[in-house]
Amino acid sequence: MSFAFTLHATDGTARAGTLQTAHGPVETPVFMPVGTAGTVKAMMADSVRATGATIILGNTYHLMLRPGADRVAALGGLHRMMDWPGPILTDSGGFQVMSLSKLRKMDADGVTFQSHIDGSSHRLTPERSIAIQHQLDATITMVLDECTPYPATHDEARASMELSSRWAARSRSAFVARDGYGLFGIVQGSVYPDLRRASAEGLIATGFDGYAIGGLAVGEGQQMMFDTLDITTPLLPAEKPRYLMGVGTPDDLIGAVARGVDMFDCVMPTRAGRTARAYTSRGVFNLRNARFADDADPLDSHCACPACTRHARAYMHHLFRAEEMLGPMLLTWHNLHYYQQLMRDLRGAILAGTFNTTATAIRAGWEAGDAE
Amino acid sequence: MSFAFTLHATDGTARAGTLQTAHGPVETPVFMPVGTAGTVKAMMADSVRATGATIILGNTYHLMLRPGADRVAALGGLHRMMDWPGPILTDSGGFQVMSLSKLRKMDADGVTFQSHIDGSSHRLTPERSIAIQHQLDATITMVLDECTPYPATHDEARASMELSSRWAARSRSAFVARDGYGLFGIVQGSVYPDLRRASAEGLIATGFDGYAIGGLAVGEGQQMMFDTLDITTPLLPAEKPRYLMGVGTPDDLIGAVARGVDMFDCVMPTRAGRTARAYTSRGVFNLRNARFADDADPLDSHCACPACTRHARAYMHHLFRAEEMLGPMLLTWHNLHYYQQLMRDLRGAILAGTFNTTATAIRAGWEAGDAE
Repeated sequence: MSFAFTLHATDGTARAGTLQTAHGPVETPVFMPVGTAGTVKAMMADSVRATGATIILGNTYHLMLRPGADRVAALGGLHRMMDWPGPILTDSGGFQVMSLSKLRKMDADGVTFQSHIDGSSHRLTPERSIAIQHQLDATITMVLDECTPYPATHDEARASMELSSRWAARSRSAFVARDGYGLFGIVQGSVYPDLRRASAEGLIATGFDGYAIGGLAVGEGQQMMFDTLDITTPLLPAEKPRYLMGVGTPDDLIGAVARGVDMFDCVMPTRAGRTARAYTSRGVFNLRNARFADDADPLDSHCACPACTRHARAYMHHLFRAEEMLGPMLLTWHNLHYYQQLMRDLRGAILAGTFNTTATAIRAGWEAGDAE
Repeated sequence: MSFAFTLHATDGTARAGTLQTAHGPVETPVFMPVGTAGTVKAMMADSVRATGATIILGNTYHLMLRPGADRVAALGGLHRMMDWPGPILTDSGGFQVMSLSKLRKMDADGVTFQSHIDGSSHRLTPERSIAIQHQLDATITMVLDECTPYPATHDEARASMELSSRWAARSRSAFVARDGYGLFGIVQGSVYPDLRRASAEGLIATGFDGYAIGGLAVGEGQQMMFDTLDITTPLLPAEKPRYLMGVGTPDDLIGAVARGVDMFDCVMPTRAGRTARAYTSRGVFNLRNARFADDADPLDSHCACPACTRHARAYMHHLFRAEEMLGPMLLTWHNLHYYQQLMRDLRGAILAGTFNTTATAIRAGWEAGDAE
């Protein structure tokens, strides 16, 4: 089976497609729950599947440090270790080296850093990152890049982008092609159209199975992110999947799908689930709020998840107040279900040619809020 | 439907029966997972069911303080709030008033105490405890008693037992009988045979739907607990269920079932599940131990729970080392499954008349350990 992307329909610039992989198909647009350290936090693997998720993300930085890529490989790879037979995308580790590790030192060849867990010293190069992702048995491997911080001057952004381009070419050379496995390049260039263009053209010339858009959702704000997508997605080949890394809120997802993005990942629904923050068809609310203490309604009457079909908001409120683990368990499940349902609704709308009216109706629900 | 206990078989003094309740049948001997504050910690309600559990326990002390008995009642009772349609036994609250609350003051009528959560003042009397358990919609209500501390002099133990007996009679009067709901008395008397006899005779004269044995597993040691059971269970009517409160280890359960006890509850399997302590057919071990870091075997090859059928010990070890919530989730499930399987095996052995050989084989597995 080849790693193939089929485009079924477009509605404006929004796209609905299917990605075929060695571990099964992925219908797009798709949201990938984040399974940082070999587990989507607070979820059993079969519960993740029950939300409708078809592909999850693993973090190379976390996994290489603990339990270690050799151990994951010895356990049969990430799929078998986690009991997630479906596709898994792993990041390169680069982003978290910069955000989490101690005493990191970058050079032209790679980056040396100390583990945030035990201070042990490690090194990532493009070749090493690809080799680790191979050990993890990632369905989709990401090139090692530098996520350009925001803001960056044009000169800084260019130098960073050019480093990422060289590393992308080295990653491509190091990648061991296997049937149904893919390697994605990452477009950088901050918010500068000429740099985004140069980055995209360089990556396309090298040739990848998909193209990610990196360096966004790092403080530039939603409008500038959307503006950058407006100038970036048209640069990418229509026949390859496009992945916006680390995004985002439900509203971010709608705006990015409208601009032709196919794939997303973000810790928001899972992290929010552990802090009582609920994403619903009536907007966002915090279940610790006293107004839910006697609220016998379901969290979201439009939702089919276990939290919404089995329990009252007052019970969820109680679980968070009592710091019971079941609170994060139920709310993570709900938030992931909500994100998956959102993506299913957007895909259905694209296939039906009703993307704009569907997006407008979803946003109207958020604005109507919880009062009705 | 009446609250009825049917004895199917005995093997020595071990008993196998069925308890019929308003919320369904309970096959005995039975272990009841503890759902302290309206949740069996780290478990979805349907996961608790999946372990084979048929009845759970709720703690009146915790629930009366948070979310409050009125709130539980407004949400349709504990069964509906938790999504546990099966039977629920609630304790009286008395034990945890003595072990958890601040500034408690006992008198002949009841006990006044301050909440360990917010310092608010509360009072429990036999009548109030029964009323709260009614609000919770407990399938099995426990009388308010004083759990006599260990050690206690004969005089102390007698005074305490006599107080409990008076409160038991008041609890009986306050209990609102409903079809399929039951009220259990609690035999006290510390380790003194004459006091246990006086306690049992008094309770039997009052008349209850079942008889609990309290004041054990409070520091007296397993042998003294067994000795006390040896003199207590023969005092109880054969046609009523017998419940040993707050017990225990798997070995405690085997020994108490052998002595004619039908029902058990204990936080051990759930608490152990959160601290990496695994109960298995090969004994107890701690999954944080470094020897499991590269162990690709299942936790217990004789176990059919999700942790054992889907994952390696090395993965469980990793989850606990990384402090991932999935570690406690999977191990709590396993431990509860192990306890339920143990009780199923004991029941099957009693029905087959092979209790002693089964018990010997189970203990041999623990002693063989993990080496084979």
